[in-house]
Amino acid sequence: MPEDVRHETILFGRQNMKLKIGVMGSATGTLSKTRKRIAYELGLAIAQNDCITITGACPGLPLQSAKGAHEAGGIVIGISPALSEWEHVNRYDSPLEYHDVLIFTGSGLMGREVVNIRSSDAVIIIGGRSGTLGEFSIAYDEGKLIGVLIGTGGITSEIKNIVKIIKKRTGSEIIYDRDPRILIKKLLDYYRKEHHKHPSVHHAYT
Amino acid sequence: MPEDVRHETILFGRQNMKLKIGVMGSATGTLSKTRKRIAYELGLAIAQNDCITITGACPGLPLQSAKGAHEAGGIVIGISPALSEWEHVNRYDSPLEYHDVLIFTGSGLMGREVVNIRSSDAVIIIGGRSGTLGEFSIAYDEGKLIGVLIGTGGITSEIKNIVKIIKKRTGSEIIYDRDPRILIKKLLDYYRKEHHKHPSVHHAYT
Amino acid sequence: MPEDVRHETILFGRQNMKLKIGVMGSATGTLSKTRKRIAYELGLAIAQNDCITITGACPGLPLQSAKGAHEAGGIVIGISPALSEWEHVNRYDSPLEYHDVLIFTGSGLMGREVVNIRSSDAVIIIGGRSGTLGEFSIAYDEGKLIGVLIGTGGITSEIKNIVKIIKKRTGSEIIYDRDPRILIKKLLDYYRKEHHKHPSVHHAYT
Amino acid sequence: MPEDVRHETILFGRQNMKLKIGVMGSATGTLSKTRKRIAYELGLAIAQNDCITITGACPGLPLQSAKGAHEAGGIVIGISPALSEWEHVNRYDSPLEYHDVLIFTGSGLMGREVVNIRSSDAVIIIGGRSGTLGEFSIAYDEGKLIGVLIGTGGITSEIKNIVKIIKKRTGSEIIYDRDPRILIKKLLDYYRKEHHKHPSVHHAYT
Repeated sequence: MPEDVRHETILFGRQNMKLKIGVMGSATGTLSKTRKRIAYELGLAIAQNDCITITGACPGLPLQSAKGAHEAGGIVIGISPALSEWEHVNRYDSPLEYHDVLIFTGSGLMGREVVNIRSSDAVIIIGGRSGTLGEFSIAYDEGKLIGVLIGTGGITSEIKNIVKIIKKRTGSEIIYDRDPRILIKKLLDYYRKEHHKHPSVHHAYT
Repeated sequence: MPEDVRHETILFGRQNMKLKIGVMGSATGTLSKTRKRIAYELGLAIAQNDCITITGACPGLPLQSAKGAHEAGGIVIGISPALSEWEHVNRYDSPLEYHDVLIFTGSGLMGREVVNIRSSDAVIIIGGRSGTLGEFSIAYDEGKLIGVLIGTGGITSEIKNIVKIIKKRTGSEIIYDRDPRILIKKLLDYYRKEHHKHPSVHHAYT
Repeated sequence: MPEDVRHETILFGRQNMKLKIGVMGSATGTLSKTRKRIAYELGLAIAQNDCITITGACPGLPLQSAKGAHEAGGIVIGISPALSEWEHVNRYDSPLEYHDVLIFTGSGLMGREVVNIRSSDAVIIIGGRSGTLGEFSIAYDEGKLIGVLIGTGGITSEIKNIVKIIKKRTGSEIIYDRDPRILIKKLLDYYRKEHHKHPSVHHAYT
Repeated sequence: MPEDVRHETILFGRQNMKLKIGVMGSATGTLSKTRKRIAYELGLAIAQNDCITITGACPGLPLQSAKGAHEAGGIVIGISPALSEWEHVNRYDSPLEYHDVLIFTGSGLMGREVVNIRSSDAVIIIGGRSGTLGEFSIAYDEGKLIGVLIGTGGITSEIKNIVKIIKKRTGSEIIYDRDPRILIKKLLDYYRKEHHKHPSVHHAYT
């Protein structure tokens, strides 16, 4: 297929598929009411903007986003670390509610995160510690569009410093806001104007 | 969580999540009009029975099922071998249309099939050769509920012989029919009556 | 790098790296003394021909091959389904002995088999049922060089029929013998003369 | 098997298998002679301490460690992102030399890193930017023993700050040194005295 026809094919596809927003953050630890409410509102905003929510099918803040998206009528996909529903519930103590589809990768907690990131058109960081830092780093390294919900604690307050340390241009773009609705708007605007031109993960060492 | 409460949790989840039917078969080769029509009708039947269709996001017969399911208003999930949408289109010559969500596993053709099988409550074999035989074998080994759409060529006419050769009870159950609508009905009946009790992949050597 | 220089690079690499032979077969079930001895002799023959043995790090016949290769001074690599040594021992009841290195894929029984096949220059089928049939099908579909140790039961006696059913040319070549030493010799001869020219898995639908 | 017997089995295994040290760091970018020499000496030290070296089979600093380990007579395992040797060379521009075995995960750059980390008894960070930060985060989150080779640039100078930010106890232990030989000694001492008691990745949310 000639290069320009392919390109149109991609655009055609993009125009017809809903954008997918990955939500990554604290699955465990004490989560304040405020943070849970913000995560819930993030899910609401994703669904109200006609996007699909992707989570790691975990408890914690991403589950609150799944709930928000579900209650606003949006599609929610969970990328599970488990081999099966049984293992999802009994080994990973993970939820079934609020998700329309669970994908059982069977590749463990960090194995499935890569699938999660690859499948999201943009990822949002909300709270989170070492697991989330791993996800942020992978998303950054793969040139993803990233939203940081500031004021949600954990590593979110340190992302700017971390990016300074990394000193590597990967094509990734990071957008910060403390309001979930405004963050989603900014991400979608930027994606549609700019980032759809280079949304892919990198395919070789850069 | 006590064992019995967990068990109810699972049932609760099952009652609320739609069942997922994986469609596996020829992605390439010459496909007759008749076989394409049967694959399309299979997708229609999955959606009309309020189930989610899962495919390997490939061309060929599974794409016809995706089309049928999509046109009947059903959700269609594609488990892509690619790392990204770009690779999906340009490396794997794979379609974007008819799928609501593409999951980019980035694990190649046979790597992603395992995810496909793990995520499906039942899988249906339609036509297919060595790749599909690999999928059938994995699904059988993992104790899945399997539907075989007879009359669609390829390995479908030989599944009964192959099962005789294998001589291993894995918990898998195989249902055969040449009518896509009847096959779906039989699979759903059996799943709801019996197979939901042991729907998981096996978690250790058996 | 110009195409022809790359090609030399590959040949250079091949001349210096030992060939890797994957052994796949029954991990469970009753295994007769004779079959265990043949599997052991297969491992001996692999090591004595200065090749590396790859197994799924499982019990059963592949473990006997690991033992044979180890006792003949060869390197043995096990591709484990487990996330860790702890899970390898306690969840999968799998052995630690006779392997020099265990690779913890954390992707489950069939997830790790794909890695096993991709990493082997040739794979040998010894006994085995549905799991092994899945491995054979994947190896065949990916155009691998395959050895079948006839007389070891299970699916080995049916491979010829299965290949007739598949009716697909993938570049795979199958060599049959009932003597482990002769089988290894034939495989290495064919690999060095012919199959090294197209040893790769396929990278797109064929 | 009773719990205490299993425990002995693990110890037995550990006493007989060589420890595996993963080396992670800059695969690309300008690498000074000094940093390349330190990476080389790290490989030497790993092999001289009778350990196996694991790398991501990439160019850059880890390749220098592979070279050092190889030239000191040690075993070197590369966990490749590629599906095959062809893709390893032609898509990822990755080296074949100095490695005894390449494992073709076919799961892409960050997909294979998880396998790399899971398979290493300890991981060492040398230079590196966002990719390496992702690897460090995963290793930390999974409770691994981690060595940081200070003075090698990139994120190595910031690990202490990052750990302060993370505020999560995972069982991970980090040892810092600027001399490759001393770093290896310290890691092996700590592993043998303490960390072998909880060397596994975590198997559920913690």
